[in-house]
Order: sequence, then C-alpha cells, then structure tokens
Amino acid sequence: MSETRTEAGAQRRTKLRERLLDVARHSIAARGLSGLKARDLASEAGCALGAIYTAFDDLDELILRVNLSTLQRLGDALDTAVTAAPPAQALQALARAYLNFARRDEPSWRALFEHRLSGGAPVPEWYADARNQLFSRLEGPLGSLMPDRDAAARARLARTLFSAVHGVVALGLEQKIAATPPETLDAELDTLVRLIAAGLEKETRAAAH
Amino acid sequence: MSETRTEAGAQRRTKLRERLLDVARHSIAARGLSGLKARDLASEAGCALGAIYTAFDDLDELILRVNLSTLQRLGDALDTAVTAAPPAQALQALARAYLNFARRDEPSWRALFEHRLSGGAPVPEWYADARNQLFSRLEGPLGSLMPDRDAAARARLARTLFSAVHGVVALGLEQKIAATPPETLDAELDTLVRLIAAGLEKETRAAAH
Repeated sequence: MSETRTEAGAQRRTKLRERLLDVARHSIAARGLSGLKARDLASEAGCALGAIYTAFDDLDELILRVNLSTLQRLGDALDTAVTAAPPAQALQALARAYLNFARRDEPSWRALFEHRLSGGAPVPEWYADARNQLFSRLEGPLGSLMPDRDAAARARLARTLFSAVHGVVALGLEQKIAATPPETLDAELDTLVRLIAAGLEKETRAAAH
Repeated sequence: MSETRTEAGAQRRTKLRERLLDVARHSIAARGLSGLKARDLASEAGCALGAIYTAFDDLDELILRVNLSTLQRLGDALDTAVTAAPPAQALQALARAYLNFARRDEPSWRALFEHRLSGGAPVPEWYADARNQLFSRLEGPLGSLMPDRDAAARARLARTLFSAVHGVVALGLEQKIAATPPETLDAELDTLVRLIAAGLEKETRAAAH
C-alpha cells in the first residue's frame, strides 16, 4: 500500500471514530447505557455495522471513550468549584459540584458506574488514570485537614470520601431509599462532608496533644 | 363455585407462589437480577409461563417479594451485630455487618438496588416499610451521639450514614474506582464511620458550650 493510501485510510478511520463517538455520546446522554445499540449507532453515523469494529477494538472501547469524555467534563465541573475557602467548605463545594453534575447529566454519569467490561476484565490504564485524577481534587483540602498524615493515607481517604459522597448522591437521586426532595439531598450531603471534616479536625487536634 | 373448590384453588395458588419465590430466590442469589427469565422460572417451578401471572400481579411483584426476603436477612445480620459497645463502635459494627452481608450475598444484595419498577412507579408500602426499618437500626447509636437533636434529624442522618456506607461498600466491592483488597475496604469503612461519629461528638460538645 502506498503511503498516500495509508494516510487517507488513517484519516478516514479517525473521522469515523469521531463521528461514532459523537453519536454514542448523544445516545448515552439521552437514553443511558442500556439504550445503546450497535445497529442504531451505525445507522446514525451512516456506516456499516462492521465499520464500528474497524474504528474501535470493540463496543467496550467505544463506551470507555464516551465515559472518558464524561470524566473530563466532571473533572472540569469540579475544578470550577474549587475555592480558596477553608478546607471543610472547599470539600463541601466539591461534593455539591459532584451532585449537580450528576443531576444535570444523569444518564452519562450513571454510565460511568454501570458499564462493566466483558468477562470482568480490568479497565485499561488510560481510563484508570483519568478516573484516579478525579479523586486527586479532594487531596488538597484533605491535606490541610490532616497535615500529619502521609500521602498514601490522604489518597485512601480521598477515595473513601468520594465513595461516601457518591453513595448519598446515587441513592438520593434515584429516590431509592426514600423520597428525597432536592433541598434535602443538598443538606444531607453538606452534613456528611461537614461531619467528616469535623472528625478529621478532632483527630488531628487529639494527635497533636 | 363451592367453598371447597375456592379453598383448594387458594391453597394451590399459595403453594405455587411459594414454589416460584423459592426458585426466583435461588436464581437471583446465583446469577443476579439480569439472569432472571420468566420462562426459566416457570420451567424450574414446573408450571406454565402464564401461571406466574396468576400467582403474582407481575414479575415486578415477584422480584419485590424476593428482595423483601433479602431485606429481612440483611436486617437479621444487622441485629446480630448490634452491641452494647459505645455508640461509635456500635455504628462501626453495623457498617461492618452490612459489608459482610454484601460480600456473602452479593447478587441478592445488588438486586435490592438494581431493580426498578416498570414505568418508574414507587415501590408499594409493604416494601418501603421493610426498607425503612433497616435504617432505624442506626438510630439508637446515633441518638446517643446527638442527644440534643430531634427524631427527624436523627432519621435523616441515619439515611445519610446508610447511603455513605453503601457507597463505600458498593464501589469497593466492585473494585469500580480502584483495586481494593478486602482488608483495605474494612479499614476504609471503619475510618468513614469513626470520622462521622467523631464529627458528631465534636458538634454536640460545641453546642453544649
């Protein structure tokens, strides 16, 4: 194959990838992960069903790429919420930004947690890295609240706090365990983060004595 | 219809309900909610497909009845964990019992959260009552940690704490946000509950001054 033909082929593949990503992003945003069908994607993107598998390794890769763009938007939303406020309020602002992102973009946000790789394979490194970067946003304020603890303890607590906030948001938005009006959910999340921050301050002070 | 025939019919229906419940319980425990197929249930229970809908209103009712029995087993596991320990440790014991139940019975436990009623209808009252009773187990120890707050605040915090614990357990067991070895997950959950309890103690003491 001549270089020109190869380049043209690579360009076509790149364009097809972008088109398919765009169609899949809109589909997941509107109907969630369970509404995503390869046949519909191909028809909306104007390509043959098999072309999906020349543009991506498989449907899992396509979904992970959509989830990656959701992670990036979520990261941007958290960055916008970062404040120079005292650490407890900074954590509350991050938690509230997480809740508001989930409210605004619920199907895309749920897809982050609903998607499972076929055969239970672990996610690829490029995806895991992007996901782990999310928690790192909690580490700054957490570090101010626990100055005597090492980076590993801080990273562990960032993950725990993220999971706890996620639990309140996920069950609250789904009204899964009780009818939760929006302002009640806001208040519950504030309380959770406030208590954890107060607990950290108390333990840090006790350790200093 | 004579009384005898009606009674015999009611008895047959009761027996069929029990047989179907038993088969569905085993299916969900082994393969989760997504592995449940009405056709397989009928064949395993030795009845016609249509007979399911004479024994239950619909498949949703059958699933809710299975979930109810899971809620009852979960409640028993929490009751066994209740200790006369100081309230912070009592809450930690309850959280640990929740984690261990989820580990032991993961597909049945996930079914509690994955099941959605067709058309987004709210769950029936008999189910909501059983679910709300779960949180009430947290209210005793929480009450000791916040003696100055009213019952509504205590109930709200019980729900928030349950959701936070659930988030750490759900994401941790699924290894969704990082590889989490069992002992790390145990420790993360202990930390979460310990910090929340310490935060409550700090706020209660501050309010008393």
